[in-house]
Amino acid sequence: MQLLKDTILKEGFCLPGNILKVDSFVNHQIDPKLTYAIGHEFAQRFADEKIDKVVTIESSGIAMALPAAHELEVKLVFARKNKSVLMKEEAYTCDVFSFTKKESKQVYILKKFLNKGERVLIIDDFLADGNAALGLIDIVKQAGCEIAGIGIVIEKSFQQGAQKLKDAGYRLESLARIKSLENCNITFMD
Amino acid sequence: MQLLKDTILKEGFCLPGNILKVDSFVNHQIDPKLTYAIGHEFAQRFADEKIDKVVTIESSGIAMALPAAHELEVKLVFARKNKSVLMKEEAYTCDVFSFTKKESKQVYILKKFLNKGERVLIIDDFLADGNAALGLIDIVKQAGCEIAGIGIVIEKSFQQGAQKLKDAGYRLESLARIKSLENCNITFMD
Repeated sequence: MQLLKDTILKEGFCLPGNILKVDSFVNHQIDPKLTYAIGHEFAQRFADEKIDKVVTIESSGIAMALPAAHELEVKLVFARKNKSVLMKEEAYTCDVFSFTKKESKQVYILKKFLNKGERVLIIDDFLADGNAALGLIDIVKQAGCEIAGIGIVIEKSFQQGAQKLKDAGYRLESLARIKSLENCNITFMD
Repeated sequence: MQLLKDTILKEGFCLPGNILKVDSFVNHQIDPKLTYAIGHEFAQRFADEKIDKVVTIESSGIAMALPAAHELEVKLVFARKNKSVLMKEEAYTCDVFSFTKKESKQVYILKKFLNKGERVLIIDDFLADGNAALGLIDIVKQAGCEIAGIGIVIEKSFQQGAQKLKDAGYRLESLARIKSLENCNITFMD
């Protein structure tokens, strides 16, 4: 997606440890125009799939997934990271290790928001080692739902996540695929 | 806002301690059609104000604020609750006590995302005692920005937040104002 790649080159920057900072348009400040264009792109790419629900993970996934869910005319569910005192009902859970935060957290979705047999599109902002995506897949499968596909805004193609998902047979659509961040130089796959 | 009030009556429910659960359309599952209508309503109500940026707080505020920011054609910044390892730059911070979670958390916005003199619209999902809104106001003022107004999806009018904000002279627009949750009965102000 050219607009996204242009924005990454213009506003993104690297930190040591293969970290790409995109907080001016993905995970702290959001550019609604770009986010709506991302949603449109996801909806187009998955137009041939039957999709009943979009699932993402808080917080940065929400803005990336909402416009896609709107265009696909389905509900959006975001997996939560901290159980609130409101949370007395049963939930599907899994542990997710964050590449950037270097910690593992339990995430959950309440059972009532995933109905057996639904076809789910998973959307997230980043794909690195695939931990968040695999965690969401695990939760969706616990519910007896099918994975319609996985939509990623920024894929770090030099890490293992994309290959893991493809090897497991999932349809993966990444809007920007980063080949390398070596020497703090951002290069794309194509 | 009638559609919102209808949805609260249809899908919301009470828990002991004046807690209103709206997790099927606000803070776990999101109904994009309703969320876009909420954004449109905020944009209409604040159409007479000059607005340079929308500010909210993760996670539940994001989906409520994104469509408004899109329609107002400004960027959205969400205050973050957990400093990530990416966060080396300077930030404006404040402590916010959560009514539902019964705990205090430091929230922050990186300084580079708030420019002196900007007029900021604050949007959040709930207004109870006003802690989150007052925290965001504090951060916005630290940056030398002006408050154009505060937009709230669900105001618990029987708690002190709304009065505090009005007493401080801020323009407050709440889309649903709850008069009482007594005996687990949801009644509105008007």
